[in-house]
Amino acid sequence: MRALQYVEIGKPPQVVEIDKPTPAPGEVLLKVTAAGACHSDEFIMSLPEDQYIYGLPLTLGHEGVGIVEELGEGATGVKVGDAVAVYGPWGCGACKKCQEGHEQYCPHAAELGIAPPGLGSPGSMAEYMIVKSPRHLVPIGDLDPVAAVALTDAGLTPYHAIKSVMPRLSGASWVVTIGAGGLGHMAIQLLKVMTGASVITLDVNEEKLAFAREMGADHTALSDENAPEEIRKITGGAMADVVLDFVGIQPTVETAGKCVHTESEIVIVGVGNGALPVGIFTLPYETVVRAPYWGYRQELAEVVDLARRGKITVETETFPLDEGFKAYERMHEGSLRGRAVVVP
Amino acid sequence: MRALQYVEIGKPPQVVEIDKPTPAPGEVLLKVTAAGACHSDEFIMSLPEDQYIYGLPLTLGHEGVGIVEELGEGATGVKVGDAVAVYGPWGCGACKKCQEGHEQYCPHAAELGIAPPGLGSPGSMAEYMIVKSPRHLVPIGDLDPVAAVALTDAGLTPYHAIKSVMPRLSGASWVVTIGAGGLGHMAIQLLKVMTGASVITLDVNEEKLAFAREMGADHTALSDENAPEEIRKITGGAMADVVLDFVGIQPTVETAGKCVHTESEIVIVGVGNGALPVGIFTLPYETVVRAPYWGYRQELAEVVDLARRGKITVETETFPLDEGFKAYERMHEGSLRGRAVVVP
Amino acid sequence: MRALQYVEIGKPPQVVEIDKPTPAPGEVLLKVTAAGACHSDEFIMSLPEDQYIYGLPLTLGHEGVGIVEELGEGATGVKVGDAVAVYGPWGCGACKKCQEGHEQYCPHAAELGIAPPGLGSPGSMAEYMIVKSPRHLVPIGDLDPVAAVALTDAGLTPYHAIKSVMPRLSGASWVVTIGAGGLGHMAIQLLKVMTGASVITLDVNEEKLAFAREMGADHTALSDENAPEEIRKITGGAMADVVLDFVGIQPTVETAGKCVHTESEIVIVGVGNGALPVGIFTLPYETVVRAPYWGYRQELAEVVDLARRGKITVETETFPLDEGFKAYERMHEGSLRGRAVVVP
Amino acid sequence: MRALQYVEIGKPPQVVEIDKPTPAPGEVLLKVTAAGACHSDEFIMSLPEDQYIYGLPLTLGHEGVGIVEELGEGATGVKVGDAVAVYGPWGCGACKKCQEGHEQYCPHAAELGIAPPGLGSPGSMAEYMIVKSPRHLVPIGDLDPVAAVALTDAGLTPYHAIKSVMPRLSGASWVVTIGAGGLGHMAIQLLKVMTGASVITLDVNEEKLAFAREMGADHTALSDENAPEEIRKITGGAMADVVLDFVGIQPTVETAGKCVHTESEIVIVGVGNGALPVGIFTLPYETVVRAPYWGYRQELAEVVDLARRGKITVETETFPLDEGFKAYERMHEGSLRGRAVVVP
Repeated sequence: MRALQYVEIGKPPQVVEIDKPTPAPGEVLLKVTAAGACHSDEFIMSLPEDQYIYGLPLTLGHEGVGIVEELGEGATGVKVGDAVAVYGPWGCGACKKCQEGHEQYCPHAAELGIAPPGLGSPGSMAEYMIVKSPRHLVPIGDLDPVAAVALTDAGLTPYHAIKSVMPRLSGASWVVTIGAGGLGHMAIQLLKVMTGASVITLDVNEEKLAFAREMGADHTALSDENAPEEIRKITGGAMADVVLDFVGIQPTVETAGKCVHTESEIVIVGVGNGALPVGIFTLPYETVVRAPYWGYRQELAEVVDLARRGKITVETETFPLDEGFKAYERMHEGSLRGRAVVVP
Repeated sequence: MRALQYVEIGKPPQVVEIDKPTPAPGEVLLKVTAAGACHSDEFIMSLPEDQYIYGLPLTLGHEGVGIVEELGEGATGVKVGDAVAVYGPWGCGACKKCQEGHEQYCPHAAELGIAPPGLGSPGSMAEYMIVKSPRHLVPIGDLDPVAAVALTDAGLTPYHAIKSVMPRLSGASWVVTIGAGGLGHMAIQLLKVMTGASVITLDVNEEKLAFAREMGADHTALSDENAPEEIRKITGGAMADVVLDFVGIQPTVETAGKCVHTESEIVIVGVGNGALPVGIFTLPYETVVRAPYWGYRQELAEVVDLARRGKITVETETFPLDEGFKAYERMHEGSLRGRAVVVP
Repeated sequence: MRALQYVEIGKPPQVVEIDKPTPAPGEVLLKVTAAGACHSDEFIMSLPEDQYIYGLPLTLGHEGVGIVEELGEGATGVKVGDAVAVYGPWGCGACKKCQEGHEQYCPHAAELGIAPPGLGSPGSMAEYMIVKSPRHLVPIGDLDPVAAVALTDAGLTPYHAIKSVMPRLSGASWVVTIGAGGLGHMAIQLLKVMTGASVITLDVNEEKLAFAREMGADHTALSDENAPEEIRKITGGAMADVVLDFVGIQPTVETAGKCVHTESEIVIVGVGNGALPVGIFTLPYETVVRAPYWGYRQELAEVVDLARRGKITVETETFPLDEGFKAYERMHEGSLRGRAVVVP
Repeated sequence: MRALQYVEIGKPPQVVEIDKPTPAPGEVLLKVTAAGACHSDEFIMSLPEDQYIYGLPLTLGHEGVGIVEELGEGATGVKVGDAVAVYGPWGCGACKKCQEGHEQYCPHAAELGIAPPGLGSPGSMAEYMIVKSPRHLVPIGDLDPVAAVALTDAGLTPYHAIKSVMPRLSGASWVVTIGAGGLGHMAIQLLKVMTGASVITLDVNEEKLAFAREMGADHTALSDENAPEEIRKITGGAMADVVLDFVGIQPTVETAGKCVHTESEIVIVGVGNGALPVGIFTLPYETVVRAPYWGYRQELAEVVDLARRGKITVETETFPLDEGFKAYERMHEGSLRGRAVVVP
């Protein structure tokens, strides 16, 4: 079968012919119908050799949907022919975190050599992929694969970030989102369907702000040094109840800290190396700050449910597998609108 | 000044001429601009002499808005000329419940002879009214008094009921409301602005269901014995995550119990003498049931904020003070659409 | 191998010789080291033929611990020789409830023919037992099997009931427990190690109250019609913040309703056919009532952790497998102190 | 009357004779029975002239208890002769934060010229003091004033910090406290009575660690660079569920960040200028960090309740008013054990 692999440090990924895998007992083989390209793929391909830990060659793709092709012995809960989405952050399955579905925080995965598809295990950018356990699969019914695949990360990650701030986001609340890209454009939609809050989106140019408004943002502003003052005006002095930062670089996390009031919450989602200092004198009192990673297993089912009911839609651009490398080129240029999806 | 008073057990209320009151130290005198008529007024006027405990004559009205006319000595936090709404469930102000704003649950109010306006203390259906403390006042700015007055009960009561179920009501959630009257029509609007849930409203006839849809209900059904089956169809078998019963009679609370799934929540708000038996064998496992009363002090500010931002609107019919008794006649007939407001 | 089976409706269970089972792919075979006897076993053996739904013959025992003897193909997460406890409420493993570990509330188990061991599937009162999936196993290390086995139900069930009321139970709080039997004596210990609340235990005679005090109850009182007044005295008029009823018959749930204050919580755990009516006029306002069942998958790990750290201890009486029927006789007499454990 | 006042920038406070104040309408006059000395008093007396904003002369003392001596007109809820503790963080009383008792976060206090006693308003280190409103008073019954006074800050502040982490602190949980001084020694006691968690206390020398163990700490360790490794050993690798830092300098907040696991919580309470950077790469994922200030109004009643029931005790050293300056000398030396209390 064909697979888009990262073969050599610093070189673009390439399509290679490899053997179709066979599911071991307990595993599931999927015929992939769509695979999502993510900034973190680009990130790991930018790492120098001494920091790269994902193995070579690496079949890319941690977002995947497919059709169940074959069940390993003892694999139950799905059947051949089911259309499913893949929950990517695989854990040991046995510890307390895994038991409660917080599998992205499994403390044993690394030592056991367990890694997400496309981030250590063979990923979804291939004609077939192995999923370690049926517990990582969520039925998607008749959802279009291209529309569904980004739910597994670009949908799930903001969903998880929003879920625990829901009690803060009533009809009179203000939430600021920073960044209207792959995760950010899903966050705007999710906030509108999960809460009653008014959404203010910050981004770097007017084109992106227009896209944010199209996605449902009630207000937008440039994410520059005037942003806090803009937020003050828009909220009538109240400032934000919650800020969700989908960029996560130092300037954006600092902006986040200036947009909130006492007893508010800031969630840093973007993997951008920024860090916001929390102390008595650095932020409004008792503002909670956290930086989560991906989402819970059960939350993927909730995200898929929202999509199946037509409440959220992923913006996508499609690339054939043979031209999958172009998805990353376009991502690098910053010219993608929404999510790049590779179709085998 | 004129006041609409309940003077004699079993007789309709009448307009009488009484002295304009003077605020004692710490109190506030309001010039009333609107007063809401509520089913509970009608209820207490239906009580036989041996159950009636509110004193005679009683100036009616526990929903009130007005203009601050005069401050008693030491009353701070508002100033003469402010337009304000009155938080009605007055407590002692000193105990733990009052300290945290849960003043409707003050355990000392009764023994101290403290009663809400219109339910023991002189109420809002008069040209002027005394408010015991500035802590019971919320500024309403330029909100229309007629539009604002019902927020203090018909708005606050469902708001309080909804506030603690917000974490259960995401975009993929289902909430059932029973009854689309004074509180119920506010609940539908509040659910749409506070949460992302789909609202299914039950009521007794098609006219009321049409009104519910006008208020924002996504689905409606008759509140008869087929209601649970209808809910099953509408939700695709999922059943409701939350039921809010604004009627509270035995048939409606029993319907509520049949519309939910495991680990859901039922809130009985309507003062209708119904009671839902909770046990291992009576409801889906771990369904939470509670019957709250009115709302927290700080929640009234939140409800007023929603109205000032145009997110909720009370449907009203207006009556002059001299014809205030007609408000109760119309309520008794069931011919009101929304809330009856008396204007002095 | 030998197994204690319920063979004929209305007859006592008997020890029979059956084939040692073989684990199918994904399953785990345990060599049983201890099996707990529970009131619910007795309950199902008391059912008339037309209500009995568990199949015949039925190997009893839904509480089990053992040593991993053999792994079916593809079963991972445990290894041969591990000492483990069995999480009993088995679900489909694929739905949202199962994904988040709320497996006791799986809505698909019944239709898929999935039943807990000893309550449909072959149970733990045998030399060997099959566990459907490694996700149902929690390592117990060097905990004594007899001491550990009742953690799986008599420990887990009160743990689950207490977990969600923890925010209500601070150092100044009062919690009432009703019943100091198998679950109740664990609840007292758990409350003392999980919360700072003062525990008041109600039961029917002084011997049981003495046992409750031995387990850590701060106060005790007879569970008769004077109980609410006793609670009032003990709490200085405050009444209970939480009541946990481990009996669950009509008199005890009604007592529970009389022991609480406004905005408190009542949890009905005992499977006793009682039901507490919740309405505006039946209980202090906004008292929350719920009736949970068993516990979450991840909670069993927490209970086992408490036992391994020596914070809780199950009182037990031991019976050899060949005399397992005596455990139920003694239970029926009410002469057990703590939990009956059958050792193969 | 005599009062301990800060009169000149950079000079020690001195006892001066001033007029006994008279309560304005709504205010309460207390005859002070005890006043607590706090590090923040020392801090403000160390400020250079251009940063000092509290007015001169300033009667010190933001912790106070006393006997109600006289009520201003319209002041209700307490009566002459009541023994009361003073809630210090005074707000406007009218905004949403004040309505719900979160008065320490009133956004209007500064602009309205409202300041806590001893931090702008005349404080408790005098024979008499004015309390702006009865809502700032909590009855203490027959609690010894010296024992009670530090509850208002050294008790309330850690209580507030602990209250919201209670759901994280079950019997199998680990909590680390840093600093066993005025607030820290109360925190240890509070953790033992409010939760079931095991407490590990860090401080700079063995004497302080011995004091921590006396207060109830289960384990102690030096707060040096080895502390995280010590925590790892004590917790068997689990690391802390919660860290409460009562020092708050840069080294301690950084230690805090190294002692926790994924999805844990760090609360920075000590006013020490430290700030902990929160980002994807700086802390275990989804660790929540916040820095609260003082406590909620209703929480003071809960702290007083714990003290009245004998569950917590403040360690104190007593100084007569005329030698009040010595309290600060001893504090500066670091030779106090527990809290310095000034008795008029």
